[in-house]
Amino acid sequence: MTTNVESAHHDVAGPRRYRNTDKMIEFCEPVWLNASDRRLINLHADAPSNNTYVVRETGQEVLSLCSFAYLGLNTHPKVIEGAVDALQETKTMGLGVGNARVRHSLLGRMEEEFSDLFGAHVMAGVTCSALSAGILPLLAAGHVAEGGRRVMVFDRFCHFSMAYMKPVCAEESPVFTCNHNDLNYLEDMCRKYPRVAYIADGAYSMGGDAALEGLLELQNRYGLFLYFDDSHSLSIVGERGEGMTRSQLPQMSPLTIIVASLNKGFGTGGGIAMLGQRRIIDFFQHHAGPVAWSQNMEIPVVGASLASIKIHRSSELGELQRKLQRNIDYFDRILPTRFAGNGLPIRIIDVAGPFEAVNTAAALFERGFYNSAVFFPIVARGEGGIRVMLRAELTEEQIAGFVDAIQEILASL
Amino acid sequence: MTTNVESAHHDVAGPRRYRNTDKMIEFCEPVWLNASDRRLINLHADAPSNNTYVVRETGQEVLSLCSFAYLGLNTHPKVIEGAVDALQETKTMGLGVGNARVRHSLLGRMEEEFSDLFGAHVMAGVTCSALSAGILPLLAAGHVAEGGRRVMVFDRFCHFSMAYMKPVCAEESPVFTCNHNDLNYLEDMCRKYPRVAYIADGAYSMGGDAALEGLLELQNRYGLFLYFDDSHSLSIVGERGEGMTRSQLPQMSPLTIIVASLNKGFGTGGGIAMLGQRRIIDFFQHHAGPVAWSQNMEIPVVGASLASIKIHRSSELGELQRKLQRNIDYFDRILPTRFAGNGLPIRIIDVAGPFEAVNTAAALFERGFYNSAVFFPIVARGEGGIRVMLRAELTEEQIAGFVDAIQEILASL
Repeated sequence: MTTNVESAHHDVAGPRRYRNTDKMIEFCEPVWLNASDRRLINLHADAPSNNTYVVRETGQEVLSLCSFAYLGLNTHPKVIEGAVDALQETKTMGLGVGNARVRHSLLGRMEEEFSDLFGAHVMAGVTCSALSAGILPLLAAGHVAEGGRRVMVFDRFCHFSMAYMKPVCAEESPVFTCNHNDLNYLEDMCRKYPRVAYIADGAYSMGGDAALEGLLELQNRYGLFLYFDDSHSLSIVGERGEGMTRSQLPQMSPLTIIVASLNKGFGTGGGIAMLGQRRIIDFFQHHAGPVAWSQNMEIPVVGASLASIKIHRSSELGELQRKLQRNIDYFDRILPTRFAGNGLPIRIIDVAGPFEAVNTAAALFERGFYNSAVFFPIVARGEGGIRVMLRAELTEEQIAGFVDAIQEILASL
Repeated sequence: MTTNVESAHHDVAGPRRYRNTDKMIEFCEPVWLNASDRRLINLHADAPSNNTYVVRETGQEVLSLCSFAYLGLNTHPKVIEGAVDALQETKTMGLGVGNARVRHSLLGRMEEEFSDLFGAHVMAGVTCSALSAGILPLLAAGHVAEGGRRVMVFDRFCHFSMAYMKPVCAEESPVFTCNHNDLNYLEDMCRKYPRVAYIADGAYSMGGDAALEGLLELQNRYGLFLYFDDSHSLSIVGERGEGMTRSQLPQMSPLTIIVASLNKGFGTGGGIAMLGQRRIIDFFQHHAGPVAWSQNMEIPVVGASLASIKIHRSSELGELQRKLQRNIDYFDRILPTRFAGNGLPIRIIDVAGPFEAVNTAAALFERGFYNSAVFFPIVARGEGGIRVMLRAELTEEQIAGFVDAIQEILASL
């Protein structure tokens, strides 16, 4: 027999087809709290450089191995100067008007320079996740590409910022989740439905990358729409830092959209969408939810981005990319892991489970290394790992020191 | 008989309970395109001050009457200096690590100063809409306040950034939309369901405000959770600029959350949530979607915000608020409209329909005034209006000039 309260609780439970908050919290909040109790998360820090965090709470200094400032552009003197110059030149933080109506000239110039740099029609947004939140439901509703509504297939490992929008997309068309890089499943869907869109990362935030060649074949054969978040390879891959996906496409097709955050390798903030058609930008400004609301990159972030674009056009970008690549190669040589050799900066060191991941991160912290323990829902339930994010600014000595430390710790567990 | 293509189209249409993109685009895209053809939207501009836009495309100079820089703090020399100082002091755009793990000390200091300023536990977010997108589904799922899942009732006029999340909330619990400020409906819902949350604006972006007194009675009587977006009154209402809603609450209850954008009256960027409990902040950092992902206010925006907080603590805030209030009173005296006398800066001048709104905005533009024509879905289908946003920096002469112009135009239509 259920009590009244229980039955009332049952009455108001939604269908939870695309999310199950109760389960997520039940499984991972204990691990978060354990990490918090051991002062591994919810920290405040100063950062004399990208390599060093000085924890405000304890004064401890640690070497950062969990920052996505892959090229160190977030602290590049010219990027900082670009932000300062834009503030001093415009004397404003922003126009204070909706994007669809009036945009600051400097923002317009930045979009033009991005378009030229990456060979695509580029639209800026306040964040990469705001761009996805705005565009994906319109894609499902059939207003981004020809032919009407599209069945949406999300890769199981695609970033949360896209998976989060499944219920909104499902208002417009059927939503499915496929296994990681499952081209057979995708081909079946393309045969079954007249129009399909696939939502994925270019370079995945947990390592690995999209099966681009096979995906392009499906696009050619069936008109499959490809939507990629390539935040983790922007700036670090491609002659002009256009990222892993864009660098492999001869040109942008109207059936492809790439979004990327500018707060990772690129070093500033906000996000961009690379599009195959110019006219869709105005359309997004009118109808794409968070893209249309009165929010966009603030002037200092625009100024910093213009400076970073300039670095992307110079030989310095290649130098930084090669430095990063040498560090990735060195790491892969001395500690081969699952994604070794893929040229991307994210590596996962598997440990037995979530609490073991926290234990390992705590032991690393004691030895002066700051890493993130990863657990559900970032990895599968019951699993755990240490995420390593390599950067151009690390020295071989620092990497070797970290590898020694973690091997010792893992051997002693 | 339907053709194959039609039936395939039918097959893939979602339920569209909470959004209908086709209808929205069908009704309002023609008006947007008309406004675009007449060069009233999708403009780029420089702004020598908040009063003047110089349109890049045409060189035309217009007086802005559609900016939410209500107090002009976005161009305040001390705010700009605050952004520059933070950049020069920290030498970085941001830490490049997830919020839940490490936050920059300066961001931590800003949150502490906000908490002290507004008498609430304050959490920062990359935008106000990201805060709502993260918090609302957890509220529906019953993880924000005691007692479990809550039925969600959205005010019909609440901002798009909250209404956009209805399908995500509906995964967790039933979602309803009520008429604007309909306290009777809300009381019925409180009687029918054990736990209800009401989602509304404090000051509405189309003018008007929440029925706070009645809502607080329902909270006392039934434990109704109140979630407000008070972006359009932050800084401009309250002794410390705490906004219309916070200024009327003796203290923050664990059953109330107020979010607000910092890019309007406050003059910087990003957003804040005012909370009644400290412990929920860490919880949001772990589980609240866009709040938990690796995005937050960039360092120059944090620096600008610290400077704006300082102004909020000085007598200058009151002076700017009074200037704005004098302009609002003056406007209401010479052109009384629906919300005259409510002390808020947004006014709507009704016109016959959407295309008439564009015509009126075009005629105003010719006379040197930049206003926004508003139409569906901002107002009801078939309706149209001119939105006026008053600011402290406007002079009485400028306001009188605008009122003369629009009266002449409306008389001639």
